[in-house]
Amino acid sequence: MLPFLQLILAIAIIIFAAKLGGYLSNRVGQPAVVGEVLAGLLLGPSVLNFFHLPFFTDPHLEESIVHMAELGVLLLMFIAGLELHLEELVKAGKTAFFAGVLGFGIPLLAGFGLGSLMGYPLEQAVFLGLLLSPTSISISAQVLMELKQLRSKVGMGLLGAAVIDDVLVVLSLSLYGVLLGGSEAIGGVGEVGIILLKMLGFLIVSHAFGIWVLPKLVDIVKKLPVSQGLISFAFVMLFFFAWSAEALGHMATIIGAFMAGLFFSRSSVPQSFRDGFSAIAYGFFVPIFFISIGLEANIRLLTADSLWFLLILLLAAILSKVIGAGAGGALSGLSLKESLQLGAGMIPRGEVMLIAATVGLVEGIITNNTFSTVIVLVIATTLLTPPLLRILFSKARSQKSEPVQVGD
Amino acid sequence: MLPFLQLILAIAIIIFAAKLGGYLSNRVGQPAVVGEVLAGLLLGPSVLNFFHLPFFTDPHLEESIVHMAELGVLLLMFIAGLELHLEELVKAGKTAFFAGVLGFGIPLLAGFGLGSLMGYPLEQAVFLGLLLSPTSISISAQVLMELKQLRSKVGMGLLGAAVIDDVLVVLSLSLYGVLLGGSEAIGGVGEVGIILLKMLGFLIVSHAFGIWVLPKLVDIVKKLPVSQGLISFAFVMLFFFAWSAEALGHMATIIGAFMAGLFFSRSSVPQSFRDGFSAIAYGFFVPIFFISIGLEANIRLLTADSLWFLLILLLAAILSKVIGAGAGGALSGLSLKESLQLGAGMIPRGEVMLIAATVGLVEGIITNNTFSTVIVLVIATTLLTPPLLRILFSKARSQKSEPVQVGD
Repeated sequence: MLPFLQLILAIAIIIFAAKLGGYLSNRVGQPAVVGEVLAGLLLGPSVLNFFHLPFFTDPHLEESIVHMAELGVLLLMFIAGLELHLEELVKAGKTAFFAGVLGFGIPLLAGFGLGSLMGYPLEQAVFLGLLLSPTSISISAQVLMELKQLRSKVGMGLLGAAVIDDVLVVLSLSLYGVLLGGSEAIGGVGEVGIILLKMLGFLIVSHAFGIWVLPKLVDIVKKLPVSQGLISFAFVMLFFFAWSAEALGHMATIIGAFMAGLFFSRSSVPQSFRDGFSAIAYGFFVPIFFISIGLEANIRLLTADSLWFLLILLLAAILSKVIGAGAGGALSGLSLKESLQLGAGMIPRGEVMLIAATVGLVEGIITNNTFSTVIVLVIATTLLTPPLLRILFSKARSQKSEPVQVGD
Repeated sequence: MLPFLQLILAIAIIIFAAKLGGYLSNRVGQPAVVGEVLAGLLLGPSVLNFFHLPFFTDPHLEESIVHMAELGVLLLMFIAGLELHLEELVKAGKTAFFAGVLGFGIPLLAGFGLGSLMGYPLEQAVFLGLLLSPTSISISAQVLMELKQLRSKVGMGLLGAAVIDDVLVVLSLSLYGVLLGGSEAIGGVGEVGIILLKMLGFLIVSHAFGIWVLPKLVDIVKKLPVSQGLISFAFVMLFFFAWSAEALGHMATIIGAFMAGLFFSRSSVPQSFRDGFSAIAYGFFVPIFFISIGLEANIRLLTADSLWFLLILLLAAILSKVIGAGAGGALSGLSLKESLQLGAGMIPRGEVMLIAATVGLVEGIITNNTFSTVIVLVIATTLLTPPLLRILFSKARSQKSEPVQVGD
């Protein structure tokens, strides 16, 4: 079969499996992302060993799919930035700040401590901390919408905290890459100083461009008689930000994509633009990304040892997030119950943890075994959270101790 | 630079160049596709030699871009099918039929005759005929919209004729591939009979599926709580039709994609679906296709000899289309003036000719030199048509001899 025929057959199967998995997952009350990753696990080496089916003979097929998955990650981060309203988040700023910083810091310390106890070398122990520190905005938001608590004090605080957490994780991953990631460019403190200067330079120049120049360009492009001009322009900017973040700024491509989304959300883009981008992302590229995660994991590698590791890691992941984010909520003036709700809402890991794990796998910092464990961990935290939140919020509702639903 | 960084940088440059070229082309009164292909020529080996710039070191980069361009072709054909309203076209059926068949047949004969005169072997002479036979729907429609003549008798006849022409070209290309394309599977007349049976079988099964099963599936998928479910489903169907057309039906992938679009247009898909698909196609994949055409052509290869060849081919392309489609129009009862308008409207070649030429280049039927000539030919026919139509229609308007604009 011609390589192109293999490619379109593979994409058709992947998108179909992703959406079927997401649908079934929804049917049993779980977020779609769980089913999409599970579908990837089924297709992957764990069960079907997709890329080694007899009719897939093109040696570049897997690389082509991985490239599309990576484009999916960029689109996901762009949309995360695009959906953010800085103004709304600023209102919940205090809660978001404390819960975000401690919800990032405590799991980081927990993972680092766990890694050190297990005798990991420094850079692997730190990376284990980084793996535990993310929170998934999409999953938290979806659960809270379901419970009609998204615009409550806890809900807005949680959204803001998840964003701060994400930014801290992405920045830390970049910094990690510079300081510990074994980049051959690092020759000493002076070298690190130059790299930090480049990061700072990139952040300053890209922010200046994004805040002052981009909105004007958007206004011009909007009026041009070019078919889908604004969508194309967004792709150009998204890729250019992502590329320059890594190539010029020594940061991750995803932070560039996230920033591009943030700046577009501050520009006057029409709803049709958001709809079009959503169609491209969730209709095509993002399902490929979610499936590709499962495609790369092999749960056959999970041994009795790694099951113990998984259980300990899961416990650390849950407790550290509830304690960290909860303490942050309490510090910002939330009640104990609200702090618990906030902490529980931050348990789900998700895209960012998977992205971090993918980076770790590619860079050789974590093993295939750990990668598979991380995927099960993501699925487990995502599965545990909805029932937990339901319990915590129903108690609050029955006691009517405080107004849990505030309008905007 | 990492291969993925090279990929996103290349896509950003390609999309930017395509849209800039399309915009400038529009500014000087030409269809966007002309500027997009010209931009590709500038990026390609003719001028900049894009893929050999020093920072593009990944040997698979060009293949990745070509794959995305091929996805763009499939989307383009899907949308061509999607935009078709069979009912409206049936009204102009007689004109469309005669103008379509003769507008296909006469250029085919002209190209074949020209090729034979120049001493080409049979299969190359036939292919030259096939190259001259297409008409671009998009360019014709755009020019007529500009002249507010799209829903006139001539306009509807032209749209219908262009579609019939396209279908005949695509079918002929498939048949050509089977009969003359040097497929190693062909062992004799019996073999050809089996292949024709497979084609027929594919057409029957896919039509039955498309007419009876697909609309019901669309109704089900529309109601599912799956994000961008219908868009994803369309991709799955589009790729599956395209794949099975070639892998099972011995036809071109593009006819599968076109059929998938036709069947979706007969299903009850919402406007948001068309908008989403248009965003994906014209915002991302299609510009990559248009650029990739120019990327593969090298006008430095055009010699004095090939300039003569180009001029003769251009003359044959224009005259054969005006005479063929015009005679068809006259046979269906149009006046001489209307027939001329119709014939002139069919001059622009476009995507399909480029697709055919690409197939020819890949299969080794035509040389790089001929391929470059074809691209210049597409650009020339597209550039010549708007002024020609303006003259023909303004004369008709000033004489007020017949109602050229009919409402619906």
